[in-house]
Amino acid sequence: MLRVYGMTESGNCYKVKLLLRLLGREHEWIETDSRSGVTRSAPFLAKNPNGRVPLLEIAPGDYLPESNAILYYLGRDTPYFPESLREQAEVLQWMFFEQYSHEPYIATLRSWIHLMGAAEQYQAEIEARRPRGYAALAVMETHLAAGRSYFAGERYSIADIALYAYTHVAHEGGFNLDDYPAVRAWLARVGAAPGHIGMFD
Amino acid sequence: MLRVYGMTESGNCYKVKLLLRLLGREHEWIETDSRSGVTRSAPFLAKNPNGRVPLLEIAPGDYLPESNAILYYLGRDTPYFPESLREQAEVLQWMFFEQYSHEPYIATLRSWIHLMGAAEQYQAEIEARRPRGYAALAVMETHLAAGRSYFAGERYSIADIALYAYTHVAHEGGFNLDDYPAVRAWLARVGAAPGHIGMFD
Repeated sequence: MLRVYGMTESGNCYKVKLLLRLLGREHEWIETDSRSGVTRSAPFLAKNPNGRVPLLEIAPGDYLPESNAILYYLGRDTPYFPESLREQAEVLQWMFFEQYSHEPYIATLRSWIHLMGAAEQYQAEIEARRPRGYAALAVMETHLAAGRSYFAGERYSIADIALYAYTHVAHEGGFNLDDYPAVRAWLARVGAAPGHIGMFD
Repeated sequence: MLRVYGMTESGNCYKVKLLLRLLGREHEWIETDSRSGVTRSAPFLAKNPNGRVPLLEIAPGDYLPESNAILYYLGRDTPYFPESLREQAEVLQWMFFEQYSHEPYIATLRSWIHLMGAAEQYQAEIEARRPRGYAALAVMETHLAAGRSYFAGERYSIADIALYAYTHVAHEGGFNLDDYPAVRAWLARVGAAPGHIGMFD
């Protein structure tokens, strides 16, 4: 059986849980709280030298890190990944966008403010990163507002799962989505998909 | 014909040029220097709302951004992308690692120090990011030192191209690779591949 080392509050880990549930795939979830230091321990570093969750154990001793690579592994041969090369590349485009232009701002502010309760300590960094979080939301809004229902191939894909994970809790990092109506409509669309579960479900 | 909007000095853009050359695919290179502000201009933002290079024009008006998504698009059906799902996921694992855990440290320091000549201005940020760059190099060293020649599937793939782009110029950001012999051997291996070109070739 698939094993997932994950931290429930982490959007990156939630991506994996959400896709597994949508696919109806059984798995064992091993709660792994990076705040406890366990992901920097020698036994965990032997599984993933980069010391991060989520981590998928595909078979005993065979580990796959990186949330979006895990989405690809689990989703490639399912309806959550398109068939054409052009659309596949678009899915990956948005997943790389998520990790480079979105997560370091939207997720990191949520982590400092909401998970660590350290808004004061990180105030200067938060102010420096806030505009880049809004810039990522603006890129998403521009894309969706051009009449698109989903990020790639006009169907719900692993690109949507990757972007939904931290966007739907962006308010916990102090982001206001009032000016991003197409993003809000897309969040509602993803949240209404059959089989959808929340982060704490 | 494929068109690439790219900045020669950018490792992300070099990835695309290197793969196109290895594949012997003709293309037109449109020099696009992000330092000039052109990537934030309205005509460019109409092509890529995220305002970055490289940008691949697949057909007139059909644009694909994100260097690693472009590598996938160009490389999927070539020897630079493995056939098995497990190995494909490993390729993507290292490409997501590159964008999240490597590029923001190794490439950003090179940009500030070497391309912008702004080491003094960014001194505090450089000191803060330096350990994370070395942490990324250590993860690479651990992986390769376990008897591996390449990052995924024991063959040269787009994962190697993605990681080579900024690692081979890491010294321009002040990184010393003396303690990373497996990384240095891998750099030499990639650099010796038939058809290899340098960043300015």
